[in-house]
Amino acid sequence: MNTRFYNARILPLDGGAPMVSGELIVSGGRIAAMGEHCEFDGRLDREIDCGGNLLMPGFKNAHTHSGMTFLRSVADDLPLQRWLTEQVFPKEAQLTPDDVYVLTKLAILEYLTSGVTMMFDMYFYRDSIAQAAIDTGFRAALVGCANDYGGSAKETEEEYARFSKLNPLISYRLGFHAEYTTSYPLLKDLADMVQSLRQPFYTHLNETAAEVESCVRHSGMRTIEYLDSMGFFDYGGGGYHCVHVSAREMEILQLRGMTVVTCPGSNTKLASGVAPVYEYLKRGIPVAIGTDGPASNNCLDLFREMFLVTGLQKLNHGAEAVDAAEVLTMACRNGAYACGFDDCDCLAVGKQADLILIDLRQPNMQPLNNVEKNIVYSGSKQNVALVMIAGKILYERGEFFIGDDPERIYAEANRIIRGMK
Amino acid sequence: MNTRFYNARILPLDGGAPMVSGELIVSGGRIAAMGEHCEFDGRLDREIDCGGNLLMPGFKNAHTHSGMTFLRSVADDLPLQRWLTEQVFPKEAQLTPDDVYVLTKLAILEYLTSGVTMMFDMYFYRDSIAQAAIDTGFRAALVGCANDYGGSAKETEEEYARFSKLNPLISYRLGFHAEYTTSYPLLKDLADMVQSLRQPFYTHLNETAAEVESCVRHSGMRTIEYLDSMGFFDYGGGGYHCVHVSAREMEILQLRGMTVVTCPGSNTKLASGVAPVYEYLKRGIPVAIGTDGPASNNCLDLFREMFLVTGLQKLNHGAEAVDAAEVLTMACRNGAYACGFDDCDCLAVGKQADLILIDLRQPNMQPLNNVEKNIVYSGSKQNVALVMIAGKILYERGEFFIGDDPERIYAEANRIIRGMK
Repeated sequence: MNTRFYNARILPLDGGAPMVSGELIVSGGRIAAMGEHCEFDGRLDREIDCGGNLLMPGFKNAHTHSGMTFLRSVADDLPLQRWLTEQVFPKEAQLTPDDVYVLTKLAILEYLTSGVTMMFDMYFYRDSIAQAAIDTGFRAALVGCANDYGGSAKETEEEYARFSKLNPLISYRLGFHAEYTTSYPLLKDLADMVQSLRQPFYTHLNETAAEVESCVRHSGMRTIEYLDSMGFFDYGGGGYHCVHVSAREMEILQLRGMTVVTCPGSNTKLASGVAPVYEYLKRGIPVAIGTDGPASNNCLDLFREMFLVTGLQKLNHGAEAVDAAEVLTMACRNGAYACGFDDCDCLAVGKQADLILIDLRQPNMQPLNNVEKNIVYSGSKQNVALVMIAGKILYERGEFFIGDDPERIYAEANRIIRGMK
Repeated sequence: MNTRFYNARILPLDGGAPMVSGELIVSGGRIAAMGEHCEFDGRLDREIDCGGNLLMPGFKNAHTHSGMTFLRSVADDLPLQRWLTEQVFPKEAQLTPDDVYVLTKLAILEYLTSGVTMMFDMYFYRDSIAQAAIDTGFRAALVGCANDYGGSAKETEEEYARFSKLNPLISYRLGFHAEYTTSYPLLKDLADMVQSLRQPFYTHLNETAAEVESCVRHSGMRTIEYLDSMGFFDYGGGGYHCVHVSAREMEILQLRGMTVVTCPGSNTKLASGVAPVYEYLKRGIPVAIGTDGPASNNCLDLFREMFLVTGLQKLNHGAEAVDAAEVLTMACRNGAYACGFDDCDCLAVGKQADLILIDLRQPNMQPLNNVEKNIVYSGSKQNVALVMIAGKILYERGEFFIGDDPERIYAEANRIIRGMK
């Protein structure tokens, strides 16, 4: 399938090249040519007039629990610990692998409406998650979530071997749920596994003040210090949330070359706090952006997250903090690197064709004074005209091309939650 | 023009009635009937199958400067005072009445995409603003913005008389720009005018800490105390922003029956602070929601504002603070009351047909566990399927019916900013 986009503005976001007006040719799932005028020898299956609208890399959702779509708006307005123990855990225990398959598809539909081309997904029944991604054509990094209620180092190691070579759309990262749900013997097994596989490691880190205090009480160390002392981050990796982080812990993040995945929508709604993103950037710690799960956020919308990433830092550090270009780097590039999808980060010849078309002919994008600021400060789902992943169009002008009927997926999601005790 | 909506979920938001499934009939610009099945004798011009989607009152944007669309993304990442003096004022000085007319139309297009059916607009060239609203069919309350750089009590009084009876779509509220832009002689004239007309009064109030400190330095009183001591709020009214407000000033807001218009997007982006909305609600002070101008926010999206209204309070007061139902009351009802559009607040027989159709058959609205929470926590512009004002459809499935060509409006807005020094 060869596709030519023409009459486009192209924002490469490759860290240097400016916006160009021209065309972009996709062949074999990758960008074959890009520029003012392109040479291409192959047969074109489709030519798309972009009408002067904007091609850019897709947004990367670097932390989510997609299967939690069934819990959207079921339990809100509760703090994290009560929300987990009273609402989330009892209902999750009733899910089947088939449920997680269809609930993940529901999340993928929502990602597509928001221009998201990749998810870094931590949830159980990972075979179902991978299958939902492969069947729809979506790109997914899976991460283990072993904890005292299920999972082991052995299972994680087995998954790493299996999922890493399953499909080009799938990657796998070592990880576990969180320090506060995992007791010492399992932690020790997982730390040994990291030393044996020599791979980056990802987990929920320092999301709430209570969780850090609890770690200090039993270990004498804050969470990042404690896990680092066990060698978890010897090969890098990253932390989801990283809201309550000391200066010493920031040094560890720097030293280990770790990525922080900030989830401002979830941290706001669950009253967990504001992550020190401004400090991370000053120290050169890469920051990626995640929505967290749809039960805590409650939506899977990178536009909302992008505004919050900069807005909350401005509230704490002044209106100059964290400009639009920095936010786009976080949203498009850093999430790809965290997942090992290094060739999905930007628009350049040879890169994966994971791209979106942003409709600029909408009132919130006019006048066209500054495209990057328009996207970060005024952009919304309504501007997403097309989403392509690995050269395949999955969403175009409000229609989904994912090999399944959205209405069937909605009906199934409603059936699943209605059937629960 | 008589319109029948059927196969709809209807959320009246009248303060009591629950959601019903049924139909709603509009005649003569008002709701003629509503319920499971409706009797209607007249001829129906159009019947709309809502496909199970949601009819609800339109959102009210209770503070904006619509004409500032030309400055979107021109100057960002600056604190309020530098942003005003270095960027905004010099460019605004170059605007003509024709410019404000077309720039207001651009804002109206954007309101429609966000389900907004009314604006409370403070900007200059108010004849142009009123004309833009009337020509497009949009509902607008105008408010005077006299200050040391232009305007007077006499002009404000003349406008009050003229705009109050201009058109059913238009209302007018007494007001001025802000204490910090207005010196004593003009303040005194305006205060005398309030006593003579005995009308509610609206102005920017306590937006930044610096502005309140400056008022204390020259008057010995904080801004709300100072203006109240001059009698400005003897007949009620309200304040835009109200971010930095003392307990004594909250008592004044209560005593005078004033409305607070909170603008969390603008306050966040300009680093002005977080308004104490949680305290206002505890004291029974009505809160409405505004976007502020598109140069400070930078978008005119009530969905973003609704999430921020509750999210920022949760960050400060815990996850239980300010639930979804309270936010919808602010967004749909309180803004209408502030502008004197008392019959545009909710869906009920006899009320103005200012309503929107929310597309629930989108992934961010599924499963349908709780419609109100879905709208506040997961809703986006993408869910706005139709907007009707005074019985006339202005926006439907992405198309505008405003008697003008959006492409022409975009071109004009670009021409205006490009032509400026």
